[in-house]
Amino acid sequence: MIKQDSIFHNTDEFVLESGGELPGFQLKYTTYGQLNKDRDNVVWVCHPLTGSSDFTAWWNNFFVEGSPFDPKNYFIISANVLGGCYGSTGPLSINHVTGKKYFHDFPQVTNRDVVRAFDLLRSHLHLHKIHTLIGGSLGGQQALEWAIEQPEVFEHLILIASNAFHSPWGIAFNEAQRMAIEADLSWKENDERAGLNGMKAARAIGMISYRTYEGFEKTQFEKPDGKLEGFRAASYLQYQGLKLANRFNAYTYWLLTKMMDSHQVGRGRESVEAALQKVKANTLAIGIESDILFPVSEQKFLAKNIPNASFKTIDSLFGHDGFLLEFDQLNDIVNGFLREEVMVSRF
Amino acid sequence: MIKQDSIFHNTDEFVLESGGELPGFQLKYTTYGQLNKDRDNVVWVCHPLTGSSDFTAWWNNFFVEGSPFDPKNYFIISANVLGGCYGSTGPLSINHVTGKKYFHDFPQVTNRDVVRAFDLLRSHLHLHKIHTLIGGSLGGQQALEWAIEQPEVFEHLILIASNAFHSPWGIAFNEAQRMAIEADLSWKENDERAGLNGMKAARAIGMISYRTYEGFEKTQFEKPDGKLEGFRAASYLQYQGLKLANRFNAYTYWLLTKMMDSHQVGRGRESVEAALQKVKANTLAIGIESDILFPVSEQKFLAKNIPNASFKTIDSLFGHDGFLLEFDQLNDIVNGFLREEVMVSRF
Repeated sequence: MIKQDSIFHNTDEFVLESGGELPGFQLKYTTYGQLNKDRDNVVWVCHPLTGSSDFTAWWNNFFVEGSPFDPKNYFIISANVLGGCYGSTGPLSINHVTGKKYFHDFPQVTNRDVVRAFDLLRSHLHLHKIHTLIGGSLGGQQALEWAIEQPEVFEHLILIASNAFHSPWGIAFNEAQRMAIEADLSWKENDERAGLNGMKAARAIGMISYRTYEGFEKTQFEKPDGKLEGFRAASYLQYQGLKLANRFNAYTYWLLTKMMDSHQVGRGRESVEAALQKVKANTLAIGIESDILFPVSEQKFLAKNIPNASFKTIDSLFGHDGFLLEFDQLNDIVNGFLREEVMVSRF
Repeated sequence: MIKQDSIFHNTDEFVLESGGELPGFQLKYTTYGQLNKDRDNVVWVCHPLTGSSDFTAWWNNFFVEGSPFDPKNYFIISANVLGGCYGSTGPLSINHVTGKKYFHDFPQVTNRDVVRAFDLLRSHLHLHKIHTLIGGSLGGQQALEWAIEQPEVFEHLILIASNAFHSPWGIAFNEAQRMAIEADLSWKENDERAGLNGMKAARAIGMISYRTYEGFEKTQFEKPDGKLEGFRAASYLQYQGLKLANRFNAYTYWLLTKMMDSHQVGRGRESVEAALQKVKANTLAIGIESDILFPVSEQKFLAKNIPNASFKTIDSLFGHDGFLLEFDQLNDIVNGFLREEVMVSRF
């Protein structure tokens, strides 16, 4: 199977929703499988907060032989977000105007900015129709924004553990994480390693919001053995923090949490409901019953207000992270969704 | 009504469960109302994480005229925990052996240590019988430990939003908070203000765990108005962090989160269940349906395993913090519990 990484360069000035500007940008993107003659087998994947364009790394059982999006039949593409740290222009990139890295000067980026950048890449690749646009969490927020902005392009839209606007509760989880980064005084410096200890704590907070009481009970429970500290649940969070610090930077982390906070499809449009009415794709909203961060009420709201949409749920011990773990259920639900589509168009 | 603050001095060396030692300690305690002739109208209150001995400040509608524990009829007492920062010996106290403040040298303290210290105060005051021992959250953990250690002393035990051992999920929330304090490099210093920015972030994490999605929705929701940052939910957490930093210190915060983590009534005893079997008090375990930090399954477990116990729930939009807010429901439940008691003893 052909998997390829590429870089898309846009040399035009790019004005952001915040009023900030980038003197051009690049997007790293990964493609997997082959575009067919009719160019109608494209699946576009929007990645979550700390993901990369290489969806085979983090959605590793979703694009395999026999799955709904078998790379033998589909041409699957994903691009690292603008502001990211996996090959796209972000805070650690050189600002060509100043000749220096952006660091704290990187402007605020919204989901709407990200999908406008993605759309330039889509045009560049002459992908006039996208068979399926799919994303979970932050990726689902971007997929939704894009399907609202360009309703004619997308035939199917799959939104997993995502929402129409970020909740006050979700914003609170992100703000607590940014407060942890701010508490790390190294964050004030212009340095690639700025704020990394703060980011470890931020990741620990994030991990809690992605999981459940029952999930921790299942994996981290210890019988009383006399010890008063050094519990498994604590070591697990320390480990997760360290793991992220070895592959990410606090600038991008900060930027993407603010991107999530500002997600609001109703902004500058008549209303949230009116924005959702614009979607023309056949839509599937999937929720995870145990998700405390993006509770199922949010995906029900999507399915209720997007014209041609259905709603399904996944059972998981692991809450929000279920969208990265429960492949059997995801595959079944997506298979059903695509089969139903075939049935409807056949009769 | 007579309210009085006092200091209890214990000049004997006090050996802690961790093996650490204190060359004596003091406990600040508050009493409200009057001890009757039979000395059988004592209510002992164990305070939660950031509370003080002045329960009228944080349980302000629980000990008022007409409430189940009307200070006209009861003598209500509470002591600040060992390790606390409201008048009891803690990390900012002078170590009389070195002549310096403890800071990072303050030894680890467990709930079992705390109630042993409280029990010395109880003996000193000749309170041989306690009518009711009551606490919520960390305070409930201490009340439970005490009722296990001294089963003959307590006639009634009321445990609110508490548990028999702290869950891996609860430990994770505490560890994320300590990671935020650790990320603040000033934490390494020996200074009263060490780690305060980290503690602000820790408090923000704590606030989320004490509340709910629906509670934030109710109080912090904003309609789309074009802004991309500076959301209410974020300002609210910043405000809560600052408020705690103005009245607490990071050493005590750190110590009390570890105290909570190490709560395990089965430690050094046959089993958790066998420990709970030791309680002789007539017990009421109260849970809050929406509590994500101490879910109701934990209070059901208490009621199931303590010999003479019942279980009640409170409805609240505010999760764990419901135990500090839902006075009408608390008063009704506690009234019912005490009335039933009278009925039972009458027949």
